[in-house]
Amino acid sequence: MTQTQWFPVAGVKLAAIEAGIKKANRKDLVVIELAEGGRAAGVFTTNRFQAAPVQVARRNLQQSAPRYLMINTGYANAGTGDKGFAYCEETCLLLSELAHCAPSEVLPFSTGVIGQTFPMKPFEEGLPRALESLDEHGWGRAAEGIMTTDTVPKVASRRVELDGKTVTITGMAKGAGMIKPNMATMLGFIATDAAVAQPLLDQWVKRLADASFNRITVDGDTSTNDACLLIASGRADVAIDDGDSRPAALLYEALEAVFVELAQALIRDAEGASKFVSIEVAGARSDRDAQIVAETIGHSPLVKTALFASDPNWGRILAAVGRAPIDTLEVEKVGVWLDDVQIVAEGGVADSYTEEQGARVMARPDITIRVDLGAGEGRGQVWTCDFSYDYVKINAEYRT
Amino acid sequence: MTQTQWFPVAGVKLAAIEAGIKKANRKDLVVIELAEGGRAAGVFTTNRFQAAPVQVARRNLQQSAPRYLMINTGYANAGTGDKGFAYCEETCLLLSELAHCAPSEVLPFSTGVIGQTFPMKPFEEGLPRALESLDEHGWGRAAEGIMTTDTVPKVASRRVELDGKTVTITGMAKGAGMIKPNMATMLGFIATDAAVAQPLLDQWVKRLADASFNRITVDGDTSTNDACLLIASGRADVAIDDGDSRPAALLYEALEAVFVELAQALIRDAEGASKFVSIEVAGARSDRDAQIVAETIGHSPLVKTALFASDPNWGRILAAVGRAPIDTLEVEKVGVWLDDVQIVAEGGVADSYTEEQGARVMARPDITIRVDLGAGEGRGQVWTCDFSYDYVKINAEYRT
Repeated sequence: MTQTQWFPVAGVKLAAIEAGIKKANRKDLVVIELAEGGRAAGVFTTNRFQAAPVQVARRNLQQSAPRYLMINTGYANAGTGDKGFAYCEETCLLLSELAHCAPSEVLPFSTGVIGQTFPMKPFEEGLPRALESLDEHGWGRAAEGIMTTDTVPKVASRRVELDGKTVTITGMAKGAGMIKPNMATMLGFIATDAAVAQPLLDQWVKRLADASFNRITVDGDTSTNDACLLIASGRADVAIDDGDSRPAALLYEALEAVFVELAQALIRDAEGASKFVSIEVAGARSDRDAQIVAETIGHSPLVKTALFASDPNWGRILAAVGRAPIDTLEVEKVGVWLDDVQIVAEGGVADSYTEEQGARVMARPDITIRVDLGAGEGRGQVWTCDFSYDYVKINAEYRT
Repeated sequence: MTQTQWFPVAGVKLAAIEAGIKKANRKDLVVIELAEGGRAAGVFTTNRFQAAPVQVARRNLQQSAPRYLMINTGYANAGTGDKGFAYCEETCLLLSELAHCAPSEVLPFSTGVIGQTFPMKPFEEGLPRALESLDEHGWGRAAEGIMTTDTVPKVASRRVELDGKTVTITGMAKGAGMIKPNMATMLGFIATDAAVAQPLLDQWVKRLADASFNRITVDGDTSTNDACLLIASGRADVAIDDGDSRPAALLYEALEAVFVELAQALIRDAEGASKFVSIEVAGARSDRDAQIVAETIGHSPLVKTALFASDPNWGRILAAVGRAPIDTLEVEKVGVWLDDVQIVAEGGVADSYTEEQGARVMARPDITIRVDLGAGEGRGQVWTCDFSYDYVKINAEYRT
């Protein structure tokens, strides 16, 4: 597991406390402090019903460089109208007064049940305690504090040498269910101590999210509360202003490794998942077409239940390819592989294929489904999981 | 149940036999004979991977008025390439020789596992027996004969007086899983003894499918083998040539009732379904927008698992509305009702709403989710079901 191997990031302190927001005896309130001079950039859910904290965090991020991030579980504070918005502002004000900063320097994040506002008292009692326990070594506890139906905390970390200086990148994320491309109920907070220029940070967080969190899907549902923040504290004395420079490339590569590790960790811990499945589509007319085909396969409940059953029912993969909403598809050019085993050639079952070969691959916990459309150079990729009894169980019983 | 209440249609005979195509002791081969002078029109799957029988039936239907429909379960004969196509033609030839008609007067239909061709011997041995047992009273047995994971045969029937003469409409369908708008693994065969003009029949079958089978969704997957045939035997001595006439309107209405009853019966018997859910969206800018929103809700695994749990988790409905791929959505205008209970007003929880009210509706076996977008006059509708443990079980174990 990755969650025990991480490095602190200078200029970034974290605290996680049991505030009793919804349930007793669990960490449910996390505060992250960013030292003065730090910068941040974010991407947020594309769902039109944006939770109050998403609206507030977006606005505040445009007004100021953040000093504090505040994350609660238990209540999503979405679908709560003006009242939810006022509650959210109230918690930001509370923290800003305790920490002596402007309310707009606080970014709020919430995850949990939609449609109910949270009680204020746990924030009033909890925030002072949280501020007292801020610690650069708090990543592990904070990663626990943002969990909902996750079964393990998710932290990833890298160190890289830039111009003879060590730069650290550490991030944490939560996810579990309701995950699909375009930021579905997931929260991700990734920090580096390099001093990355703001325009670069804005650009990078989008590219990095596209290459990681936007490639994962559990059930095709997109939440009201997703957010992913990229933080640069600037404490490492390495300034990255030119995106085309060698240090920028090295830093970006290390950031991408952290983003991808976190995204894949979300899938490995997805609700009820028993298999990690990478779907790689090549030979499409465009990258966009390839991505659409990959997502259609990745969202198919029939493909996902076959994966759960370790059944090489490749007809379901073919049926998903055939209904993907792309303009043209030459079925007689389509090839499909499960890991190294070719199951479909020229749109039909491959001559060399045997059920035994398919069953052998399907028994593995990590499987790659590779599709070649034979029509061009476009490529796409999705990471997903199977669909199990436990998915239904967890989601049927979520609120009880 | 509807399957025992049906009237024979003059000029349409059916037979269902145990041919041993895949399993012993089950009806798996159905033949429908249409008397000379009859007409038919059809709609077929939109999946690009079209099974061999879909390709052959489409082609034959363009060449000739059909005399025989032949339906087998066990094997879908999809993804089987040239070999599957040749096998399919072979079975049509076989039946045409036995029945003394042209091969193009036979329409083949298959449903079952994708990617394997069927054995020929059961057809050779079974078709003569099927032809011997053709009977106008064969609807019930034929409806059993086309079942796969269906648990009950589905037949619907109506009689209507046109110009003082009795006209009969009887139809059967199979579905169960893999059902979504645009003809997903479902077969439907609906016959009337009226003499409907061919252009009208062609037009009607599309409109009728759009108002019935294309409104149902179980899991968003679209199969390679769907087909829906509308047959007019012409034996009732009532000719319908003018679509705007009063008899045409009455006949269409009765046809629609049969199509809708069959479509809803597929949902009621969907794999693992415990609830019948009608999703009605109004107030959209266009009918198309409304339909997209209805389908997005109807496909959401999170909404469907909440329905299974009888949990009025309306936040998941709101989240589905918010991610529906339509151009504009004014979230503060959205209202949501469960049956008669308003749960969302102006984009947030309704003041009058209590969890008890929601729970009371959710406990019902039939539920209507009504959404008003407050933006126009567009309307859409989807019939769907919940998502249960049994859905996963049935689909994980389908081939074993």
